Amino acid sequence: MNPPLGTLHLVPVPIANEQGGPQDPGSALQVLPAGTLAIARQCGYFLVENAKSARAFLKAIAHPQAISSLRIEQIGHEPDPAEIDRWLAPLLGSAAAAPSDAVLLSEAGCPGIADPGASLVARAHQCAIPVMPWVGPSAIVLALMAAGMNGQRFRFLGYLPQDRPHLRESLLAVSADARRGETQIFIETPYRNVRLYETILEVCDGALRLCLAIDLSGAGHFLATRSILQWRALPAEQRPALERRPAVFLLLG
Amino acid sequence: MNPPLGTLHLVPVPIANEQGGPQDPGSALQVLPAGTLAIARQCGYFLVENAKSARAFLKAIAHPQAISSLRIEQIGHEPDPAEIDRWLAPLLGSAAAAPSDAVLLSEAGCPGIADPGASLVARAHQCAIPVMPWVGPSAIVLALMAAGMNGQRFRFLGYLPQDRPHLRESLLAVSADARRGETQIFIETPYRNVRLYETILEVCDGALRLCLAIDLSGAGHFLATRSILQWRALPAEQRPALERRPAVFLLLG
Repeated sequence: MNPPLGTLHLVPVPIANEQGGPQDPGSALQVLPAGTLAIARQCGYFLVENAKSARAFLKAIAHPQAISSLRIEQIGHEPDPAEIDRWLAPLLGSAAAAPSDAVLLSEAGCPGIADPGASLVARAHQCAIPVMPWVGPSAIVLALMAAGMNGQRFRFLGYLPQDRPHLRESLLAVSADARRGETQIFIETPYRNVRLYETILEVCDGALRLCLAIDLSGAGHFLATRSILQWRALPAEQRPALERRPAVFLLLG
Repeated sequence: MNPPLGTLHLVPVPIANEQGGPQDPGSALQVLPAGTLAIARQCGYFLVENAKSARAFLKAIAHPQAISSLRIEQIGHEPDPAEIDRWLAPLLGSAAAAPSDAVLLSEAGCPGIADPGASLVARAHQCAIPVMPWVGPSAIVLALMAAGMNGQRFRFLGYLPQDRPHLRESLLAVSADARRGETQIFIETPYRNVRLYETILEVCDGALRLCLAIDLSGAGHFLATRSILQWRALPAEQRPALERRPAVFLLLG
């Protein structure tokens, strides 16, 4: 029988653009369940995409220890493979210290889904470290639920190519899969949202349905599913405000 | 200016196999956030996959009204398209009644994701009924977070074909996409899980990684990612208990 190891807990955090007070619909206390909050408050060791936003999150959920007394390791946007064993070492324990649990946090949403963390989880599996996922917000799931598209077959593509010829080519391939009945989901860096939206209207078939899901748990959330033809016909002043706001794009035939 | 309509709220419910007391890790009060619980408790009109499990859920979250006084419409596993406008009519209001909100509930997890509901949501968009998704458990998302696979590109395939020749053919195609770096996610009816697991070990390349995520927010949850070769080498008594338990299968190269 091996000695017990620490558990790597995967804890989602709010996805809203701006963080308001505890009664705000997008705040941590409104969008995280009791089980998830309890595990984040119990833990003293955190592996986080961004240390500053992680401290703000731990304050928002009223972690019972002084934030400065917690061990917070910043793994960054692209975790360095050479550091992973050092980050996971406390979960294995040592002659000097019993194994401790760790909580993995990304900047917004679920760790490892359109966010860093998967490489640490993969290494944890190799080391037989128990991995425990907790319930919380995912912009992709909220958008897919609300799009009214096919939730029996869907594909998340991450970011489409940036340069225009490859973006157009990629949108044509995505449209073909959407026409075959598989929901196509993708995202863009917020400051390039408008360019992506305009390219979709230009390139994609008028009969396809496009869902725009913008800043879903934020105060100014917007969600609509319309055909490409209907989006094209919208007067400029009725176009959704996409500029610099987190958005998910979904296409289906 | 159009008169305001009711909102169609999309509320996830717990995914655990058995429902325990309120302190049970998989119970509604542990896995649903305050915002989601509040909306479900405020509403008096429910569109549900299964009336019996919906009543048990409303009791578990301590809905303030007598359950018998709530309007609960069972939409079933495959909602009848001819009924959708009748179900949505209360959200539009009438000369006799102001528009009311509705809450859509599936039997487990998120409405419209590997579960019925999408056809009602699609019709709501056509009628300009506001649609609001709420945070809660999704077995697919919990499994993907915890698999340590690629969360930047993934595909959910629903159920693979049942008959053996088509299942083998489908697993070969799925393996090819998995080798190209896209996480492949699929599910099976619980009583056929063992057959699917055995066929995967038989058909798929030994170097592929398979994650089994079983009954994730239940008491006996199990999760492991190993190569097909490692799964094949497992002594029979160490094989995970898949029989009649909800499971998600994930493959990656």
